[in-house]
Amino acid sequence: MNVAVLSGGVGGARFVQGLLDAVDPAGVTVIANVGDDLEVFGLHVSPDVDTLLYTLGGVADEERGWGRAGETWAALGVARELGAEGWFQLGDKDLGLHLARAQALERGEPLSAVTERFARALGIRARILTATDDRLRTWIQVENGELPFQEWFVRERHEPEVHGVRFEGAETAGPAPGVLEVLGDADLIVIAPSNPFVSIGPILAVEPIRTAIAERHVPAVAVSPLIGGRAVKGPADRMMRRLAGGAGPAHVASCYKGLIDALVYDKADGEVELDVRPLVTETLMSDAAARRRVAETALEAAAALR
Amino acid sequence: MNVAVLSGGVGGARFVQGLLDAVDPAGVTVIANVGDDLEVFGLHVSPDVDTLLYTLGGVADEERGWGRAGETWAALGVARELGAEGWFQLGDKDLGLHLARAQALERGEPLSAVTERFARALGIRARILTATDDRLRTWIQVENGELPFQEWFVRERHEPEVHGVRFEGAETAGPAPGVLEVLGDADLIVIAPSNPFVSIGPILAVEPIRTAIAERHVPAVAVSPLIGGRAVKGPADRMMRRLAGGAGPAHVASCYKGLIDALVYDKADGEVELDVRPLVTETLMSDAAARRRVAETALEAAAALR
Repeated sequence: MNVAVLSGGVGGARFVQGLLDAVDPAGVTVIANVGDDLEVFGLHVSPDVDTLLYTLGGVADEERGWGRAGETWAALGVARELGAEGWFQLGDKDLGLHLARAQALERGEPLSAVTERFARALGIRARILTATDDRLRTWIQVENGELPFQEWFVRERHEPEVHGVRFEGAETAGPAPGVLEVLGDADLIVIAPSNPFVSIGPILAVEPIRTAIAERHVPAVAVSPLIGGRAVKGPADRMMRRLAGGAGPAHVASCYKGLIDALVYDKADGEVELDVRPLVTETLMSDAAARRRVAETALEAAAALR
Repeated sequence: MNVAVLSGGVGGARFVQGLLDAVDPAGVTVIANVGDDLEVFGLHVSPDVDTLLYTLGGVADEERGWGRAGETWAALGVARELGAEGWFQLGDKDLGLHLARAQALERGEPLSAVTERFARALGIRARILTATDDRLRTWIQVENGELPFQEWFVRERHEPEVHGVRFEGAETAGPAPGVLEVLGDADLIVIAPSNPFVSIGPILAVEPIRTAIAERHVPAVAVSPLIGGRAVKGPADRMMRRLAGGAGPAHVASCYKGLIDALVYDKADGEVELDVRPLVTETLMSDAAARRRVAETALEAAAALR
């Protein structure tokens, strides 16, 4: 069974962990968000991709929610002593990945190929691709202008109210090699429990990806990232209320109009009417069993739709 | 007393240490070689500058001869696990400096200004400038072509026989801001015990620097990097024999024709006839006292020439 998963960061990565316990990993391909990529110290950083790599590779610092377990901070410490600005934190091990990626990109290896190769090197049994190899950047529109995603998210601690989201480069960005094939070969398309606007939105902003999903011949299922109208972590709920008019399952489904046939959401959100098939379960992915259960619910939804 | 010192890496840095014990550090400016600069993982690396910064800042790994004391290697380890080539080693702390430099260069701060600022941040009492802010790169001509300096020096362990040296960019490279002023205000110009061809050569390849020294009104003294015709470390002796016809004091002096008035060399080289004033002492800079003695000999030479 081939499953294509659109995913952002932590929530998506945990969902994929559960999925890999529920189906043959050889058939799973993750299409990862690159809209929150940025340059730090001249190095290309792909926060969502790296969260996937570290989480699925079993080396993530799960408690902190980003970066690697057993991380050290010698480089950043020295950089700051020498006057560098370091609002975006990179540990020493994390830097190692960024150095390897910088070298690969400089030699002309596309980001998607680097990502796929790093996933193999980390022993990850699923394939991980980036949505695009082109420059695609998420900008957050705030009161008096707009901020690159990570400046808003990390430096400003996602406090400034969001008036809108813009995907720089989306008009010309093409899908990375393999992405359309993966979607075409999929028996099931899953939108992972990630922020619809800034994690999944940039993937769907690549028009051929959106079109491929809209014109699918197989079931597509989304998993809501919200529980009882609240984000487990991060700004998804506030963003949904402002930009989608609410943070219930129907609002999540409205973000994926025409792109999904079912929505998995938490029982804390109660019974609601949806344009798509609702599947109610417990979606908090606190441990491996919970992650697997959420994945299995998505798989059941798909089976019921066939 | 203002002293301008032209310097390469380890030998030069140790000499400057001695000099700072012998004169008021406020008057000392080091003009550092950048010919062996390179890009590693997309980061600008200035090996000679960093050897000066680490040695004079008291954080160098003196035993290893390069990099920082108490260094860790987490980043490089991960980078290699992910398939990166890492023949040029960068420890975690060392990387911190490179990240800070990358950020500063990206923001448009010239290399000379970054270097001066880092020297202050490391508590170094002398001023350190780079010879040029322009791209100037040393190429080593070998049997079947040429190699960038560090590929020859580090990756090939300086084994391939040197047929010549070329300084890419020298025709157009200008002195960094401050360099000509420092040479003009100097009461003494010293060429540190560094490799004449690949450490001092690139500095003198910047024509206005060479001209300023050639037209000096103050004494200029070089310290030979060779002891008994041998390099303390590195390929200077082999290079001298091939490219200067020998490795004695006269051959060293010939590299600086018209640019020096005296040469300090080791007593192991015996008594030789020179075009410039000879000053014979023990030049092995094994400890602080020895370093200071070599520096004082250079100062005496200058005093005698006034």
